[in-house]
Amino acid sequence: MPHSSAGPEIERLITLLSRLPGLGPRSARRAVLHLIRKKTALMVPLADALDVAAQQINPCSQCGNIDVSNPCAICAAPGRDQSRICVVEQVGDLWALERAGAYRGRYHVLGGVLSALDGVRPEDLRIGGLVARARAADVSEIILALNANVDGQTTGHYIHDALKDADVQVSTIARGVPVGGELDYLDDGTLSAALKARKPL
Amino acid sequence: MPHSSAGPEIERLITLLSRLPGLGPRSARRAVLHLIRKKTALMVPLADALDVAAQQINPCSQCGNIDVSNPCAICAAPGRDQSRICVVEQVGDLWALERAGAYRGRYHVLGGVLSALDGVRPEDLRIGGLVARARAADVSEIILALNANVDGQTTGHYIHDALKDADVQVSTIARGVPVGGELDYLDDGTLSAALKARKPL
Repeated sequence: MPHSSAGPEIERLITLLSRLPGLGPRSARRAVLHLIRKKTALMVPLADALDVAAQQINPCSQCGNIDVSNPCAICAAPGRDQSRICVVEQVGDLWALERAGAYRGRYHVLGGVLSALDGVRPEDLRIGGLVARARAADVSEIILALNANVDGQTTGHYIHDALKDADVQVSTIARGVPVGGELDYLDDGTLSAALKARKPL
Repeated sequence: MPHSSAGPEIERLITLLSRLPGLGPRSARRAVLHLIRKKTALMVPLADALDVAAQQINPCSQCGNIDVSNPCAICAAPGRDQSRICVVEQVGDLWALERAGAYRGRYHVLGGVLSALDGVRPEDLRIGGLVARARAADVSEIILALNANVDGQTTGHYIHDALKDADVQVSTIARGVPVGGELDYLDDGTLSAALKARKPL
């Protein structure tokens, strides 16, 4: 069934937009009508921004971050701590850590996690590149910042094994009660982990 | 605070996408990462589709529908009933009625409804054009398909008044549309039933 009655150009736009995460056919239709109402203020600049991004944005060959330059701005920044590499699953996780502003080292984006269910094997991820980077003389610590689920843990263990010949400390970000979290609302796993990882005051 | 750490090109893309209805900053970031992962399959075609739509899609000067041709495909279709004009608020409402497939006449898109609160006056809507079309010899019925809320009813009464000198029957789609409901959110069956059960004002 067609989404609209406005010809193949709009149908195609609705179909493409509905493939974005968070947008279904209905919200894609609303988005298209909004875009057409705001043609000069939004539609034209968006087409242009997509075009520029598609042409200029590429993965950093060193860390897997995306940027207009290669190596990316983070890898190339002279002010960042060269001795630490923080391992994340996706570029979105890197962005989240950068927004937090609590880390001034470099990153390594795996591009996913090991998953028997989804058929993701070690060679599908950027693990070889990480091992090579970890062997560099100036790297002393690899910080695993993977999601706190089974696949994240499996991947963490695999990386730990793969790095055992490299002269680096491997650490993982702490599991515990989120800041502002209320005990009553947290799941059993988080509470157990937080209890186990308790520290003297 | 920046959304990402990937330079102004991606920041701009996230900002533009987050201005679409249904997308906030977080889902816009996810959408951008998804687009970059699917560069050839989604990002490039989307940039192209937006560009084509921005260049070619315009409001129909007769009915206010949007299309690549002017008059639009519905106004130009020889097979459609020329004697009936269905008045809707927005293009999305026209699409909803077309998806229901229960109406084979023509349309008139007002571009909104009268609203004292939002400062929408009769001259802000396409009402003059409707009155002119209603005076044409071949038009015998104006069907009001406005949202079933106060502004929709006010606008319906205003149009009824404006059309009292024209030799047309003015009808409105039946109650069956829930009070407070918006056409774009209704199922096809309700829309068909409401159209069929329309009554003279």
